[in-house]
Amino acid sequence: MRSGSGGHSTAIDVPEADGRSASSKGKLAPGMVAAAPLPSPAGWAKGVAIFDLIFRICAMVAALGAAAAMGTSQESLPFFTQFFQFQAQYDDIPTFQFFVVSMAIVAGYLLLSLPFSIVCIVRPRASGPRFLLLILDLIALTLATGAGGAAAAIVYLAHNGNANTNWLAICQQFGNFCQRISGAVVGSFLAVALLAMIVVLSGIALRGV
Amino acid sequence: MRSGSGGHSTAIDVPEADGRSASSKGKLAPGMVAAAPLPSPAGWAKGVAIFDLIFRICAMVAALGAAAAMGTSQESLPFFTQFFQFQAQYDDIPTFQFFVVSMAIVAGYLLLSLPFSIVCIVRPRASGPRFLLLILDLIALTLATGAGGAAAAIVYLAHNGNANTNWLAICQQFGNFCQRISGAVVGSFLAVALLAMIVVLSGIALRGV
Repeated sequence: MRSGSGGHSTAIDVPEADGRSASSKGKLAPGMVAAAPLPSPAGWAKGVAIFDLIFRICAMVAALGAAAAMGTSQESLPFFTQFFQFQAQYDDIPTFQFFVVSMAIVAGYLLLSLPFSIVCIVRPRASGPRFLLLILDLIALTLATGAGGAAAAIVYLAHNGNANTNWLAICQQFGNFCQRISGAVVGSFLAVALLAMIVVLSGIALRGV
Repeated sequence: MRSGSGGHSTAIDVPEADGRSASSKGKLAPGMVAAAPLPSPAGWAKGVAIFDLIFRICAMVAALGAAAAMGTSQESLPFFTQFFQFQAQYDDIPTFQFFVVSMAIVAGYLLLSLPFSIVCIVRPRASGPRFLLLILDLIALTLATGAGGAAAAIVYLAHNGNANTNWLAICQQFGNFCQRISGAVVGSFLAVALLAMIVVLSGIALRGV
């Protein structure tokens, strides 16, 4: 347009194949107009993928911590009778066994998913590994939430008991044990929150890809 | 390529701006090459959106059924003393109250989300409502899974008891009550599975949009 308005302008007319930069004044480098909009979504997807990796490592640590805290919870009371010593540990209650196994599975899955997450950083536009991670993350999220909810219900019962069903609270006797299992439940909820954010990040990335 | 190979071919060289169909032989209508790939993903996204609506209605029915089954569970034993009648109902146990409230919230949310799902059918390429639904579905999924897991832990305890903590099984006495609450837990797991599939469908739709 500009170069066509007057014959004595200083603009240099360069014949161009694609016709996109017909109005450039010859001072711009040839790649700038075309290159400017491209890196923005790719860099943005890369940022999302990096956050995904960070959240994934944090969720792995939280799940591992929850499994370890629950798995090592054990308390023996200082008094005992001739035939019996009072002690509590996690495998007295099947729900807590399920919790330990589930959290260990989730932590192991998150460790194995790290390479895929790194692939998503290196190639932010690949939607295949991203979609695979979305489905597997969702399964891990459901497993962790179910285990965390189940353990929370039992921990609540251990703290408060239930008079209607004659289930007595055991936390008066086993204080340290109850503290340990409560901490494990908090860790599992942290892992659940991080996994939910990872799934949302996957949605953002799939939307942007 | 083809039209440039020999000067005496029957192809007609038409000067074209974008250079995409330089090898067309002049028999195709001008819009066909560009228009052919377009309707396919749109119809595909519409199919995904219709499945989303169907799954959403099924999940709503499952969540509502679970809440109703748990909320109406009540059993009185046929014998009673002068001061006390033995009866069990869901609000004897706080976990079951949480279950009823959570499932009612999930069912209400799924009812309210139906218009958004219909918007996604009418406009399959709109990624805004789709992404909003993904986040809210994820919250509903977590809530339903947590409530289902917690109720399942208590139902297991009611069936089997726990000798280590002196929590006795109550299902010998309250058989109908236990059947009812077990059914409610199964309904919640059905709702969880459907919600997980809805989230996966959202991922597919966001990937295709």
